[in-house]
Amino acid sequence: MAIETTSAAGFGERIMALADRLAQWSEIPDGLTCTYLTPAHRSVAAELGDLMRRAGLATEIDAVGNVVGRYAAADPRARALILASHYDTVRNAGKYDGRLGVLTALVLAEHLEREGRKLPFHLDVVAFSEEEGVRFSSSFLGSRAMAGRFDRALLQRRDADGHSLAEVMQDAGRDPEKIPALARRAEELAGYLEVHIEQGPVLLEAGLPVGIVSAIAGSVRRLLTITGTAGHAGTVPMARRHDAAAAAAEVVLTVEKRCAQAPTLVGTVGQLTVPGGAINIIPGRCELSLDIRAADDATRDAAVSDVMAEIGRIGERRGVAIESREMQRTAAVQCSPRLQSLLADAAMGLGVTPRYLASGAGHDAMVFDGLTDTAMLFVRCGNGGVSHSPRETVTAEDADIAARVLLDAVLRLAATS
Amino acid sequence: MAIETTSAAGFGERIMALADRLAQWSEIPDGLTCTYLTPAHRSVAAELGDLMRRAGLATEIDAVGNVVGRYAAADPRARALILASHYDTVRNAGKYDGRLGVLTALVLAEHLEREGRKLPFHLDVVAFSEEEGVRFSSSFLGSRAMAGRFDRALLQRRDADGHSLAEVMQDAGRDPEKIPALARRAEELAGYLEVHIEQGPVLLEAGLPVGIVSAIAGSVRRLLTITGTAGHAGTVPMARRHDAAAAAAEVVLTVEKRCAQAPTLVGTVGQLTVPGGAINIIPGRCELSLDIRAADDATRDAAVSDVMAEIGRIGERRGVAIESREMQRTAAVQCSPRLQSLLADAAMGLGVTPRYLASGAGHDAMVFDGLTDTAMLFVRCGNGGVSHSPRETVTAEDADIAARVLLDAVLRLAATS
Repeated sequence: MAIETTSAAGFGERIMALADRLAQWSEIPDGLTCTYLTPAHRSVAAELGDLMRRAGLATEIDAVGNVVGRYAAADPRARALILASHYDTVRNAGKYDGRLGVLTALVLAEHLEREGRKLPFHLDVVAFSEEEGVRFSSSFLGSRAMAGRFDRALLQRRDADGHSLAEVMQDAGRDPEKIPALARRAEELAGYLEVHIEQGPVLLEAGLPVGIVSAIAGSVRRLLTITGTAGHAGTVPMARRHDAAAAAAEVVLTVEKRCAQAPTLVGTVGQLTVPGGAINIIPGRCELSLDIRAADDATRDAAVSDVMAEIGRIGERRGVAIESREMQRTAAVQCSPRLQSLLADAAMGLGVTPRYLASGAGHDAMVFDGLTDTAMLFVRCGNGGVSHSPRETVTAEDADIAARVLLDAVLRLAATS
Repeated sequence: MAIETTSAAGFGERIMALADRLAQWSEIPDGLTCTYLTPAHRSVAAELGDLMRRAGLATEIDAVGNVVGRYAAADPRARALILASHYDTVRNAGKYDGRLGVLTALVLAEHLEREGRKLPFHLDVVAFSEEEGVRFSSSFLGSRAMAGRFDRALLQRRDADGHSLAEVMQDAGRDPEKIPALARRAEELAGYLEVHIEQGPVLLEAGLPVGIVSAIAGSVRRLLTITGTAGHAGTVPMARRHDAAAAAAEVVLTVEKRCAQAPTLVGTVGQLTVPGGAINIIPGRCELSLDIRAADDATRDAAVSDVMAEIGRIGERRGVAIESREMQRTAAVQCSPRLQSLLADAAMGLGVTPRYLASGAGHDAMVFDGLTDTAMLFVRCGNGGVSHSPRETVTAEDADIAARVLLDAVLRLAATS
């Protein structure tokens, strides 16, 4: 089936059809997995490159695997507005996380080309090669390269099969040595806009097709190891126990309770295990993870501090040792007020009440913070807001509205540039 | 080094030396693992058989691998008093769990033989081949065979390497068809006595070398699966979550709190895991185990009932499904008042204050409940009462006292028979 370039009214249908098309390349027979530089991933990149070229964009697949198509301004010295998201996926993913933003940018460029409408800035449609961090446990490889924030040390990191990132890139015809040259400079950029599914239930519950991201939460991630005293489940009286799992249970409930105390604050214990646990042995060890986020760092850090203090008290009261190691600390990013206003005006122009919401998930947009103005438009998720799952859904109607809001915001930006 | 048969005063030293000797046969290079019918296990059986024969006992290794040595009464039609425990171990075990009781019975028989003292009952020194349930996830194989309570269906059960119990027995020269013939009849038995390490801290804290078991706790074991809703750790507000691990945490603390409310009651969540958990995903599923025991079934069942009711409320309040499957329900066993009195009198005769305590762990003695009078003598554990661990310790002095209490109890029983 050929998927034709459609009129503005059909943005949504085309986005949905293209998302279906991209989902045909997968590492698994049933369902969608597309991780960095696998054959499936390279096929998607090739397809995106073809789509961009057919849209009339000056297209290349860059050194890190990003697919970049430029809808050029009349003035070659003009700055560039980046419209971007990523095309890699988590394992057993949905079809819209990342790709919705890439395809929205694509159909918008197709539309402008069709209309022959030139802008005072280049429009760079970018499909980042890596955001999810699945294959090399390091996220944002694509956007970091373009933002000049790529960590060269990662080139030595190995995937589950023992191949280094550098080897995998070379095998795929990518050149790690050319990554530094991908870095955009602040003075070349007019801004960064990203459309993404919300991955949560806020817009669904508010009955709104799209929302404007006010901030992207920064997360603190820690791994905890609790060491108590293993013992026979029948012979050690309750008062004499130093049960590592019971201490972990208190930690889980402490995180849950403290992180319910501020609107954008969330806290999660996603990993929890008693290694080698047996039904008749008091747990001597328990391992768990901690992920705490908020739209602003002060809110988050206050929660982390309170949780860690309470963890200390739990350890002391129970006579168990609790070691904690910080794995990640990312600052929250505030989106550009100017670009948020443009998106709000565009939404209102289409009869959509502007709704501002924080993003609890990290996004490529974060990586451009400090380099250029960034903003994001969220699109309503179905199925209760589920994402990173085959149950992830978006409607063609909502995708259509997202594309029209983005187009209008771009035109408003053009008018004020 | 030859370990000589010693005088009564040296029971303890000989028991310790023999426990060290038996520990040399192991499935692992560092530490002690000796599971059913492995080469290490068969070597221990052969050694025990030799020791019994050298003590003058009529010895055989029976169809299920029990090593049975009879110190015969003058009257061949006399009943038999069984002195027993097991010689298999858990993985990475201590040297005394099970074997202390076997060796105490052995040195006692050696002593009687040396003294030429005949009893009005046969004395059957029994080393059960299997109690821990490690290899086939079924405990008490040896004692069940002798009590006529062997479950033939177990013969088809397979170990981790895929070998059935029947095959493993045949390969080791044991004959499953002859198991029914091992069953002792009530009218043949004069009683059952077992010495065992306490596997807990009660005697250690009371400053007593031995204690008399009043009852053996029965356990209820359940496996629970909690199904909530997985979700992105950053995007789902706390109030909207159905976190399976948070529900599990409440279950763990419920068990801990409820089971602290009666003296012999204990409750343990030994297995706890979020399958496939990730640091940034709200747990959609959590699996945990439950083991609740008490010295009497009413106390235990009341606790199980309260805990299950609270688990129902947790599931409802959190919007998670909690499935629960009962894996095991064993009735508590009350030890024979008559045999307890004999042990108490024997202890007092040696200047040891009789201390009665319940056993939270299951023991071979349970299997003979209803068939003959049973009693157990516990021996103090060092290191805080740790067992099922290389850190398990017993002193030669305590082992000596245990042997002398057992000998005196046997002679008192003989005097009243």
